[in-house]
Amino acid sequence: MAKWIWYPFDYEVYHSLKLHARREEYGYRRPCCWRQDDCWHDVVFRKTAVLAGERKVRFCANGEGHLVIDGQRLPYGEYVLGPGKHELEALVCKLDGLPCAYADGGEASTDESWEATCLDGRWHPAGCSDFYREPEDNPEVFPFAYEPIPPVSAEEINGGVLYDFGKETFARIAAKCGGVPAALSYGESREEALDHANSIVRDRMEAGEERLLPPRALRWLFVTGPRENFSFSAEYEYLPLEYRGAFRCSDEKLNRIWDTCAYTFHLNSREFFLDGIKRDRWVWSGDAYQSYLVNNYLFRDGGLTRRTIAALRGKEPFTRHINTILDYSLYWVLSIGEYYADTGDAGFVRSLWEKMVSLMEFCLSRTDKDGFATEHPGDWVFIDWAPLDKEYAACAEQMLLAAALETMADCAQLAGADGQGYRQKAAALREKIAEKFWDEEKGAYIDSFASGKRLVTRHTNLFALRYGFAEGKKREKILRNVLQNDAVEPITTPYFKFYELEAWCEMGELDFVRREILSYWGGMLDLGATSVWETFDPRESGAEHYAMYGDKFGKSLCHAWGASPVYLLGKYFLGVKPASGAWETFTVEPGLGGLEWMEGTVPTPRGDVKVRCRGKIAEAAAPFPSGTLVWGGKSVPIPAGETVFLEAE
Amino acid sequence: MAKWIWYPFDYEVYHSLKLHARREEYGYRRPCCWRQDDCWHDVVFRKTAVLAGERKVRFCANGEGHLVIDGQRLPYGEYVLGPGKHELEALVCKLDGLPCAYADGGEASTDESWEATCLDGRWHPAGCSDFYREPEDNPEVFPFAYEPIPPVSAEEINGGVLYDFGKETFARIAAKCGGVPAALSYGESREEALDHANSIVRDRMEAGEERLLPPRALRWLFVTGPRENFSFSAEYEYLPLEYRGAFRCSDEKLNRIWDTCAYTFHLNSREFFLDGIKRDRWVWSGDAYQSYLVNNYLFRDGGLTRRTIAALRGKEPFTRHINTILDYSLYWVLSIGEYYADTGDAGFVRSLWEKMVSLMEFCLSRTDKDGFATEHPGDWVFIDWAPLDKEYAACAEQMLLAAALETMADCAQLAGADGQGYRQKAAALREKIAEKFWDEEKGAYIDSFASGKRLVTRHTNLFALRYGFAEGKKREKILRNVLQNDAVEPITTPYFKFYELEAWCEMGELDFVRREILSYWGGMLDLGATSVWETFDPRESGAEHYAMYGDKFGKSLCHAWGASPVYLLGKYFLGVKPASGAWETFTVEPGLGGLEWMEGTVPTPRGDVKVRCRGKIAEAAAPFPSGTLVWGGKSVPIPAGETVFLEAE
Repeated sequence: MAKWIWYPFDYEVYHSLKLHARREEYGYRRPCCWRQDDCWHDVVFRKTAVLAGERKVRFCANGEGHLVIDGQRLPYGEYVLGPGKHELEALVCKLDGLPCAYADGGEASTDESWEATCLDGRWHPAGCSDFYREPEDNPEVFPFAYEPIPPVSAEEINGGVLYDFGKETFARIAAKCGGVPAALSYGESREEALDHANSIVRDRMEAGEERLLPPRALRWLFVTGPRENFSFSAEYEYLPLEYRGAFRCSDEKLNRIWDTCAYTFHLNSREFFLDGIKRDRWVWSGDAYQSYLVNNYLFRDGGLTRRTIAALRGKEPFTRHINTILDYSLYWVLSIGEYYADTGDAGFVRSLWEKMVSLMEFCLSRTDKDGFATEHPGDWVFIDWAPLDKEYAACAEQMLLAAALETMADCAQLAGADGQGYRQKAAALREKIAEKFWDEEKGAYIDSFASGKRLVTRHTNLFALRYGFAEGKKREKILRNVLQNDAVEPITTPYFKFYELEAWCEMGELDFVRREILSYWGGMLDLGATSVWETFDPRESGAEHYAMYGDKFGKSLCHAWGASPVYLLGKYFLGVKPASGAWETFTVEPGLGGLEWMEGTVPTPRGDVKVRCRGKIAEAAAPFPSGTLVWGGKSVPIPAGETVFLEAE
Repeated sequence: MAKWIWYPFDYEVYHSLKLHARREEYGYRRPCCWRQDDCWHDVVFRKTAVLAGERKVRFCANGEGHLVIDGQRLPYGEYVLGPGKHELEALVCKLDGLPCAYADGGEASTDESWEATCLDGRWHPAGCSDFYREPEDNPEVFPFAYEPIPPVSAEEINGGVLYDFGKETFARIAAKCGGVPAALSYGESREEALDHANSIVRDRMEAGEERLLPPRALRWLFVTGPRENFSFSAEYEYLPLEYRGAFRCSDEKLNRIWDTCAYTFHLNSREFFLDGIKRDRWVWSGDAYQSYLVNNYLFRDGGLTRRTIAALRGKEPFTRHINTILDYSLYWVLSIGEYYADTGDAGFVRSLWEKMVSLMEFCLSRTDKDGFATEHPGDWVFIDWAPLDKEYAACAEQMLLAAALETMADCAQLAGADGQGYRQKAAALREKIAEKFWDEEKGAYIDSFASGKRLVTRHTNLFALRYGFAEGKKREKILRNVLQNDAVEPITTPYFKFYELEAWCEMGELDFVRREILSYWGGMLDLGATSVWETFDPRESGAEHYAMYGDKFGKSLCHAWGASPVYLLGKYFLGVKPASGAWETFTVEPGLGGLEWMEGTVPTPRGDVKVRCRGKIAEAAAPFPSGTLVWGGKSVPIPAGETVFLEAE
């Protein structure tokens, strides 16, 4: 089966460039605030093909150029090649797009067995995707699907018409304007749609104009003028993804939360994992790092995770942190290690290895004599929107750096490189972190030792738990002195709530987590949310909920980082987790956390695992072996294709 | 005066990308064989403008984005700014082109005082050009001029019509095809135009089609079918450049040679200095290095030299030699030093300094313990199309490297960097070159010490003369044992003939050089050449002259590297040369070299110098001071604006 081929990861770079230019605000485009790379525009592909028989081969190019077949330069077209060995080369040049080649003909067909070069003297395995298998396919067009989505109501108000699509969606509108020009405002909230001057996304149609408007986030659409002046049809634009993960339980609200999280996550799962579909419509490494985990418990679409990782990294030279943020560069490294642990896909690690090395070189070039990553001009030490003490060297960053160095050491082996240097740096850094940041008196890690404030935050100590800095007594102290200590400032963003609830789950506090989810996510649903918001503060009321960053409707009401319940309910309630690399073994250790019953599915790289619990009985099934059901102090193997039961005492 | 601004050197990168994709061959595009970079597509410009009064400022963008004026985000448009300080930012995103900004309004106007960033955290002075001063100008369009150029004759032959434009030209053709499809063949030679199957550039018009064909090199155009089936008009496309240099003498043939060289050079002086207008239509650093010198004695268009230098270097990371050729990387460094010596333009050096450093780091990473640049996989050690001995380390490359290291040391000072390391490396390398490559017995430098062949070529010894490896007795020995030694293989390319004739000129052998020019260049004119060919071998006949690289009409018949007589006649016959940096002082030391009389003009950065010689009398004039006329053993200062005479004894 032939596939269109391109320079490795240039598909991601090209679509990322386009994506990051699409954000709109008050009628103008708001370009992205970090460096945007473009694909190479002049690429050569090659393969030594050995044909078992005579083959008619059709060569196509997205761009201009020529072929070299057995040393002879020829235009693109169809050629009959005799049996035996042939040296094939396809040169493609596309100045304003993504140069790609396609050959369809037995062993000469284009796929990942071809190599590509940007003419820098080096060859790499070509990039390709199952999306593009036909000669008429165009890899510059992302394969979104479209479905008609009519509004559920129309209300004549404020000299115009307010259309309600019933829930948050992402749609392109084919519009036709009558004799009066029309102003359009898109609203994630009703208030936003009705407030043209403050609506983030808006448009204008001239009298008599007919136009397909670009796809945008909305629930409400307000159009000025009489209803008969403006006619339109809307189409939902989405990436067709299979909902492999599922969750149902005795609490109807929790079911609605899971559904809303899954839908929010789907809306943000496009070329790459977005932060939000209205704002920023960009790819942020910290947000994406959590999306990879949610993805594993919902779609398990490996392509989406790999595309996002590749797009975030962009091209050489690496001269600034991913998204300009130190922690986001480090998450990027961690995400590759976690992706490998989850899938065993060493090829992907190898294909990115050089980019991992140059990124880590950049990070290490900004460390001090203790190995601490310190802030440099132009760097953003983020961690979270919270009053952390980041002076000189933030503890949370050092923990990420140590873990990232360990990932480098692990991945070096896969890439055939020597990772000892990374391993030693990581070990030394772990010692220094313990020495400088652990406060025995407070029984917790402090944010910074340089300021003298010795501030203790949940953030830093959550990372201590997550990245192996809290073994034995330290762990107990952190739980008591930080997590269970109301005097320590609470987490306020769903972004870090992800890590906090994950930590509570790890401690087995499922009942607490269930109540947290019902309160925080349930609170949004009670206010009519049909997708999860970027932030939620129950103390606010009305349109106060929609303001952010100084804009009246600046808040994203469909933000991927709020989808964590899908991950938490799948991994800790249904309890399906890998027990060794690439799910070679796995456990199902369900926890009802106060629910009467629950049932659901967790997708794994080896197949879907089904779990059902009610009262004292748990059952599990998987189409592959090596699983163990753990329940009520007992455990039992899960044979492939069979359903096993356990009953607690 | 406002100018459009862009990220520094992105104008050059963008036009270079387009240029290098235009080469055609047998009906298909032949993409360039080295890495092609693209401009950044997402750029921010800024300036702190202090307005003396209220200003109406019109902001425009080539692309999409927005402004930030004093912290407030606003769409592009016209704004009235009050007197005083304003923080101005313009964000521009253009995915398929060159993002540019324009502001027109007093002290807020865009020009080189604005800064630009590609969002990598660093700001640089913005790029701009006098070409683009009006809001309706588009920096994506190169400002070529067009003039109607009708064919001088039409001949019905071979079932079609052969149009002759009278001389080599570069033209776009607006064509209209009648009821019969037509095949077009472009010919730099009559033979090529008449041989559709082998003509390098060809096209096809469908019945009834009307089309503006892309500009191409040609003298002859052959169109199949009856004359009335095909109508067209042609326009000469060129960069309007002033012919500041001039040369006339008592030898009419030499005058025609100068004219033909100047015209050939003009045809190749476009966005950048091309090698040839039909083939390759690319920018090669070795060819360009000579073009900078010719330019100094003809157009003295500094913009063209700077654009070419910037385009050749492209973007980071530097992972392969310029044009893939080791010597071409080194010429690039040398060209910056020579440009500075000629103009005193330190700003240009500073703007490229980081790129010089990374290029030199790359070169040095490929040197051995003696400091010799050796060949690495993917590198091309070229020097010339000649049977040189390049085993392990070619002497000519080491000489270029030593000179390039000295240029680095000189330029470091201008950039405020420490150049001592380069200086030391250069000195050590010079010693090693003398030790390993000077053959006292042969009284010459050998090409390579590794092969044991101890081959002596003109090339290596010409470089010894040119780059200061032949002082005193060594120089005399090289002249006797190599240059004046018929047993040493002759130079066969006009490319290296440049350096050979320059060396003869430096020795004062003008009569010999005149006869060489008349024989070699005159030989082409005798065969009807209207532009200088890529190579010329008088032993060939007829269409043999047009073949190259295995193609029947593969030779370029309009090749810039053949324009050296313009440089040689200006610098050594008219004798106008700088005596110190940036022409602060200069000499006019004419030499008739066997001519009865000559007169001409040499453009300098300070103004045009006029020279006239007849028999024993020489006269010179310049509109600026500090010149010296040297003639017949005497010398006299040239006061500004006066003509001085000297008569030889």
